[in-house]
Amino acid sequence: MNSLTETGKRARAASRVLACTTTGQRNAALTAIAAALEANAAAVLAENEKDLAAAKENGMIASMQDRLRLTPARISDIAEAVRDLVKLPDPVGQLIGGGSRPNGLKIEKVRVPLGVVGMIYEARPNVTVDAACLCLKSANACILRGGKEAIRSNTAFAEIMCGALEGAGLPRDGIQLVTDTSRASAGDLMTLDGYLDALIPRGGKGLIQAVVKGASVPVIETGAGNCHIYVDDSADLEMAVRVCDNAKTSRPSVCNAVETVLVHREIAAAFLPRLKEALDVHHVELRGCARTAALIPGVVPAAEEDYDTEFDDYILALRVVDSLDEAIEHIQRYSTGHSEAILTETYSHAQEFTSRIDAAAVYVNASTRFTDGGEFGFGAEIGISTQKLHARGPMGLNELCSCKYIVTGSGQTR
Amino acid sequence: MNSLTETGKRARAASRVLACTTTGQRNAALTAIAAALEANAAAVLAENEKDLAAAKENGMIASMQDRLRLTPARISDIAEAVRDLVKLPDPVGQLIGGGSRPNGLKIEKVRVPLGVVGMIYEARPNVTVDAACLCLKSANACILRGGKEAIRSNTAFAEIMCGALEGAGLPRDGIQLVTDTSRASAGDLMTLDGYLDALIPRGGKGLIQAVVKGASVPVIETGAGNCHIYVDDSADLEMAVRVCDNAKTSRPSVCNAVETVLVHREIAAAFLPRLKEALDVHHVELRGCARTAALIPGVVPAAEEDYDTEFDDYILALRVVDSLDEAIEHIQRYSTGHSEAILTETYSHAQEFTSRIDAAAVYVNASTRFTDGGEFGFGAEIGISTQKLHARGPMGLNELCSCKYIVTGSGQTR
Repeated sequence: MNSLTETGKRARAASRVLACTTTGQRNAALTAIAAALEANAAAVLAENEKDLAAAKENGMIASMQDRLRLTPARISDIAEAVRDLVKLPDPVGQLIGGGSRPNGLKIEKVRVPLGVVGMIYEARPNVTVDAACLCLKSANACILRGGKEAIRSNTAFAEIMCGALEGAGLPRDGIQLVTDTSRASAGDLMTLDGYLDALIPRGGKGLIQAVVKGASVPVIETGAGNCHIYVDDSADLEMAVRVCDNAKTSRPSVCNAVETVLVHREIAAAFLPRLKEALDVHHVELRGCARTAALIPGVVPAAEEDYDTEFDDYILALRVVDSLDEAIEHIQRYSTGHSEAILTETYSHAQEFTSRIDAAAVYVNASTRFTDGGEFGFGAEIGISTQKLHARGPMGLNELCSCKYIVTGSGQTR
Repeated sequence: MNSLTETGKRARAASRVLACTTTGQRNAALTAIAAALEANAAAVLAENEKDLAAAKENGMIASMQDRLRLTPARISDIAEAVRDLVKLPDPVGQLIGGGSRPNGLKIEKVRVPLGVVGMIYEARPNVTVDAACLCLKSANACILRGGKEAIRSNTAFAEIMCGALEGAGLPRDGIQLVTDTSRASAGDLMTLDGYLDALIPRGGKGLIQAVVKGASVPVIETGAGNCHIYVDDSADLEMAVRVCDNAKTSRPSVCNAVETVLVHREIAAAFLPRLKEALDVHHVELRGCARTAALIPGVVPAAEEDYDTEFDDYILALRVVDSLDEAIEHIQRYSTGHSEAILTETYSHAQEFTSRIDAAAVYVNASTRFTDGGEFGFGAEIGISTQKLHARGPMGLNELCSCKYIVTGSGQTR
C-alpha cells in the first residue's frame, strides 16, 4: 500500500542506532560529510547541470533556476555550514528537568532525538544537505523528499552523505532520499504512520497546506508569514522609515519580510511621503486604503485580499488606522502568527501590543527580518514554525528533539 | 460546512481575552467554579440520574456505568481538585529562555497559552470539569466534546462553569461544550482548522486512532500503553514479584499497567512460580510462551497478538528471553512508547536499557504505574502523551502552553 514502508523501517532501525551514538561519533560523521561534499563537488555540479538543462527546457523562470543552481562556491558554503554544525552543542542527552520524589524515585527528564524526521521541500538542493546534517547532529534519522526539479542534484548529495556516514561507522540508512518524486510518494510520506515522528514541509503555501491537510503523521507547519508593522503615533519617524524599508526590501521573498504597514492617522501625513520616498528607490508597488491614497500619489487601491496576501515581492500594503486597538484588530484578523512589530515610544502601547498579539515573534522597534535561527543565536535552523504545538518560531537543534523520563528506584510500587 | 465554525470563532475571541488575564483573575474564576459545583450538586446529580437511566436502558455494562456515575462525594472530590489547581503555579508568562544579541536586540522567550484546546472524550463526566479547569488555569479557551452517554451530566457541568466564569468577569465562551454528540460533530472538531491550536483525544484506542487519522488540526496522541517489565537475571526476585504484581494488579484498566513481563531464562525457574503465586491471589490469567508453560502450570499458550495487546484487564503475557538484547528487541517491536521497566542489579544493563528503550518513561527497579502527572509532581494532568512532538509522558499545565518570542530593540535592521 505505502511505497515507503521499507524506507520507514530502515529509517526506524537506523534511528535506534543513532540515538545511542556519542557526540563525537556524530561530529566525526559531519566532518566526513563536509570533506566528501568538497571532494565530490565536480560530480554534484555535473548532475546539477542536468537538472538545470531540464529546468530550462521546461521553461522554469529565472529566479527558480537561481534557487536550483549550484556553483563551486555554493558547494563550499554548504560544506562550511556542515562544519559549523560540528561546533554547536549537542542537544541530545541534556538534562532538562527532574528531581527526587517523596517516595525516593529519582526522575530525570532527558532530551532525546525525535527519532525519524521527514522533510518535504521544493527546488533548493542545499536543503538536502542542510536538513540531513541538522538531523544527524541531533541523532535523528531522516527521510527527505525534494522536488523533481532537483532530483539529480539531490541524489548526488545523498549518495555522498550516505557514503560518508558509512565510512564513519554509522548506518547509511540514517539519511534516505525518496527518489520517486511523484505526487503519490509525497502522499505516502505524509501517511507513513508509525515510522515518522515528525514531518516538516518547507516551501510555498500550496505545499505546506497540502501537507497539513493530507498528513496523518505529526506535522510541524512552517513558513507562511503575512507580517505587519504598526507605526504608532509616537514612533520615531526616521527609525520607522528605516525599519519598514528594511523589513520590505532587504529580502522580499522570505517569510519574515513585512507585507502590510499600518500607520496611525496622527502621523500618516508626516510618515507616508517619507516611507514612499525610501521605497521608491526599490520600485516597491504600494497598495493602500483611501486615506493612504489621499496622502501619497501613485497608490494602487488595496482590495481586501491585498491585506490577506503574502506578496513575497516588491509590493507593500498600507492602511491608515485610528488607534492601537484598530491596528491590533487588523493584525488579529490577517496575521499568520509569524512576526509582528510595533514601532512606538509609548511604553504602555509596547506592553499592550506584545501582550495581545499572538505570534511566534512580536517586535518592539525592530525589523521583522530578525525571525531566523541564526539571528536568534541558535546557530542553525530547520525552518520557522507558525504553529503553537511543539515548537514556535525558528527551530534549531533543540526543536528536533523530544524528551524521555528516566525513572530510577529501589523497588517502589504504587 | 463545519457545524462548529461559530463555536470556534467564539473560542478564539475568548482565548484572546483569557491570554491577557492575570493569575489572580483566573484563580478567582476557578474558586468560583468550585463553589458553584458544590452549590449546584443536586442539579448535576439529577441530570446524571437521567444519563444513568438511559445507559441502563441501552444495556451499558456495569463498569462503564460506574465511570458515568456521579455521587455527592464524587462532586466534592471534583470541586476539591479544582481548588487544588488554584494552588499550582501559573505557567503563563514564565520566562523560559532568551538573552541579548550582539546587535543589542533583547529576546525573551515567554510561556503563553496554546490558545484554543479541543478535547474529545468518552463517558466520564468528570473529564468535563477537569479539562475545562486545566485549560482555564493555563489561560486557554476550550471546546469539549464528551460522549453522548454523559451528555446531560456534561451539559449541567458546563452550564455551572460558564455561569461562574461570567460571574468572575471572564468570557463564558472560554468553556464551550459541543452538545451535538453525533459522529459528525467529532469530525467537525477534528477539522476545525484555524480555530483549534491543539486537539487532545482521551479514551480508548478506537477513539484515539480515529482522531489521529481524521484530524487536520494539530493533535496530541495520548494513552495507548502496551507496557513491559523485563526481569533481568540479576534482579532481586522478591522485589521483582512485588513490582510486577503491583504493575499488573493495582489498577489493571489504566494505561500504565504492565501487559507483558519478560523474564531472563537464568532466573525463570526461580521467578515464575513465585510470580504466579502472587498473581493467583488476583486471579490473573497468564498467557505465556512454551518455556513459560514448561515452568508453571495453567498458562494459556500466548499467540503473537497477545504480545501486541493492551489487555487493560487481569491478564498478563509472559515470555522467557535469552538475554537483555532479546528483551529490548521484544519491547522495540511491541512497545507503544508509554512506560517500560527493567528490574536488575547490573549497572550496565540498567544503562543500556534506559539508553536504548525509546518510551515516554523508562524505569529501573520501579513499577510502571508511576507514569502519572500527580506521581511526577506536576500537580495535575490532562493526559499522557505517547507521541514525541510537543509533549511526551504526563502532560501538566506547562504542556498546555506554547511560547512566544518578544524581541525589543532600538531600531535594529538587518
